[in-house]
Amino acid sequence: MKKTFFTPGPSQLYSTVPQHMKTALKEDILSMTHRGKKFHEILEQLQNNLRELLQIPKDYQIFFVSSGTEAMEVTIRNCVMQNSSHLINGAFSKRFWEISQQLGKNAKAEIIEANGTINPLELEDNSELICLTHNETSTGAQLPLEFIYDLKKNNPDVLLAVDTVSSMPYVDLDFRLVDIVFFSVQKCFGLPSGLGVIIVSPSALAKSKYLAENNYDVGASHSFVSLLKSAEKFETVETPNVLDLYLLDKVTQDFLDRGIKLLRKATEEKARILYDFFAKQSGFNVFINHKNYRSQTVIVVDVEDENWSEIRQIELENNLVIGRGYGQYKDKQLRIANFFAHSVRDVERLTSFLRVRNY
Amino acid sequence: MKKTFFTPGPSQLYSTVPQHMKTALKEDILSMTHRGKKFHEILEQLQNNLRELLQIPKDYQIFFVSSGTEAMEVTIRNCVMQNSSHLINGAFSKRFWEISQQLGKNAKAEIIEANGTINPLELEDNSELICLTHNETSTGAQLPLEFIYDLKKNNPDVLLAVDTVSSMPYVDLDFRLVDIVFFSVQKCFGLPSGLGVIIVSPSALAKSKYLAENNYDVGASHSFVSLLKSAEKFETVETPNVLDLYLLDKVTQDFLDRGIKLLRKATEEKARILYDFFAKQSGFNVFINHKNYRSQTVIVVDVEDENWSEIRQIELENNLVIGRGYGQYKDKQLRIANFFAHSVRDVERLTSFLRVRNY
Repeated sequence: MKKTFFTPGPSQLYSTVPQHMKTALKEDILSMTHRGKKFHEILEQLQNNLRELLQIPKDYQIFFVSSGTEAMEVTIRNCVMQNSSHLINGAFSKRFWEISQQLGKNAKAEIIEANGTINPLELEDNSELICLTHNETSTGAQLPLEFIYDLKKNNPDVLLAVDTVSSMPYVDLDFRLVDIVFFSVQKCFGLPSGLGVIIVSPSALAKSKYLAENNYDVGASHSFVSLLKSAEKFETVETPNVLDLYLLDKVTQDFLDRGIKLLRKATEEKARILYDFFAKQSGFNVFINHKNYRSQTVIVVDVEDENWSEIRQIELENNLVIGRGYGQYKDKQLRIANFFAHSVRDVERLTSFLRVRNY
Repeated sequence: MKKTFFTPGPSQLYSTVPQHMKTALKEDILSMTHRGKKFHEILEQLQNNLRELLQIPKDYQIFFVSSGTEAMEVTIRNCVMQNSSHLINGAFSKRFWEISQQLGKNAKAEIIEANGTINPLELEDNSELICLTHNETSTGAQLPLEFIYDLKKNNPDVLLAVDTVSSMPYVDLDFRLVDIVFFSVQKCFGLPSGLGVIIVSPSALAKSKYLAENNYDVGASHSFVSLLKSAEKFETVETPNVLDLYLLDKVTQDFLDRGIKLLRKATEEKARILYDFFAKQSGFNVFINHKNYRSQTVIVVDVEDENWSEIRQIELENNLVIGRGYGQYKDKQLRIANFFAHSVRDVERLTSFLRVRNY
C-alpha cells in the first residue's frame, strides 16, 4: 500500500504528477533542447497559467530560480542597497534575515514569539525592504493578509517581500500591495523539489536596475535584469530544471481546471477538521493559540512525551508519514501538511487513526 | 518509435534513467524529507560513488548547485578577490569571463580562435584564478590535459578552475593538478537537467575562507563555507533537486558496475567513427582542424547550405535529433553529442543514415 505523506515539504505529490512524469518521459521532454520552440511554448504557457491562477498583474515579472532559499538571496541582492527590515517568527523568517546579514546588509529584525501577538512593524526611516514570511513552515504561524497590506499602505515607498513558500497557491494574495513574492514547488503545489518562483513588481525591478547601474552586486546570472532578459524571450539564463518547469505548467493547468476557489475552500475545510480534532483530542495541543495567526497549510501541534511510541505505531500500521517539529521541536511537535495533494478523505483518515488511541 | 537525441545537452537519457525514475516514484523518493536518514544515505553514497568514479582525492570537497552556470558564479565569488584570467575559445568560456566581470572582478581574457593553436597562457603577476573550459560545447574544441596540467605546474600558486560541463565523466582528470572542477548532469551523465556539481581543492576552500573572513561577498547559501557545513552532514543548504541527486547516485553506480574504463574507451571509439566518417563524407567538414584539439564528446561539423533540407529529412525519417550549431552557427553547423547514453550502434546508425545521401 502506498504511503500518504503529511510532511511539510517535500510532501505528498499532487495526484496527477506521476502520470505527468511518465508523459514527460514518453514525449522526450527531458531530452529536448531548452533553446527550442517546444520549451519556449512550455515556458510561455506556464507564465500564462501562473498569471491566471494567482491573478498576477501584467506588469509584474515571473522569474524561475532553484529554491526558496535562493529566492531570498536574489531578493536581498536586487532590492537592498543597505537596509532591510525583518519580522521574525520562526526559522525561515530568521534565515531570510541571516541571508541579508551574510550579504553585508544592515538587517534589522523584530523578533516575536511564534505564538505571540503581531504588532505593526516600526520601520527605521532608511529601510528599503520589508521581509515577511507569510506562512512559517517551522511553527505553523501565518501572518494575516491585512497585516501585510497595512504595512504596505503605511510604508508605500518601502518595497515589501513576502515569502509564501508553503502557502502559495492557497493564499489569495493581492499582488498590487506587495513587491516580491516567492515560493517553491515541493509544498502546496505537490511537485518534486528543485524549483523556486519569484514574482517581481515594477518598483522592485526599477530598484534592481538602479542598484546594477550604481555598481552594487546584484548577482550575475540571477540579477533581475539578467532574469528579465531571458524571461522576455520565454527562455531561462541557464539550463534549468526542465522537468519541474514542465510539471509546474501541468499542475497549474490541473488546478485551473479543477477551480482554484474550490481548492482553496477545501484547504480551509481540511484545516478546520484538523484544528477541531486537535482542540478536542487529549494528548495534543495546537501550538498557535490565536486563531487569526494559525496556518491553513501547516498545522503544528505539541505532543505529550509519552505518546510518541503510539504515534510511530499509528504511522507504521497505516502507511502515514507525519512531519516532525522543526529543529529543537523535533521530538516535541508534529507538523501536518495540508496541501492541495491532500484530500478531505486523507485528513479524515488521519484524524480517525489518531483518534482511536487513548493518549 | 522512440527518438534518439544527439543534441549536446539536454540529450539522450542514459538507458537506465527511465527505470530509476519509476523506482523513485514507487519508493516515494520525491516525498521523503531532505532532513531525514534516507536522504542522508543517498547523499553519502552519491559522494562515495563520485569519488570512486572520478578518483576525487579525499581532501577535495564535493558540492551540489543548480547548474553549470551557477557553478561559474560560485567559483568566481569564492576564489577571486580581484583578478581572474580566462582562456576563451567559445561561448561558454566567454560566459565564465562575463560572469567574472559582472561580479566586478578584473577579468583578463586571452581570446583565441576556436580553431586556432593554443599557446601557453601568459598570466599577469596578480592573477588569482585561471578559468578554463575543458570541452567547449559551442565549438567542439577540447583543451589537451597536458596543456591544463602544465599551466598549473608553471603557476603553482594560482588557483585553476576547469569547466568540464560536457566532458565529465568521460575525461580522466588528475584532480591533484586542478583546484575547481565543475560539471552539470544533463550532458555526459545522461540525466534530466537541474543539477551542477563542484569539486573543490583544499587550497580553493582556504581561499574562500580567507575572502569570507575579510568581508568579501562570497555569497550566502552557496559560499563554500556554507556548502561545506551542510555537505559534512550529508545535507544540502536548501531543499535541493532530490530527484536529480537520487538519479546521479544511481547512474554513477551503473557506470561503476559497467566499468568507467570501458565507457571511456567506447566514447573514444565512437568519436573515431564519427570523425572518420565526416573526414570522408562530402558535404561536411569537421570544424576543428587540429586532431589534438578535437572534442571526444561534442563533434562539430560544418554543413554545406544546400544540404540542410536533406538532413532535416533524414532526422524525420529515422527519428533522430541532431544538435544545431551554437549561436551564429545555428544554420551552418551540426553538433553531435557523443555521451555515455550513446552506443556504438547508435553512432553507426547515425553515420549510415547520413551516408546514404549524395550531398
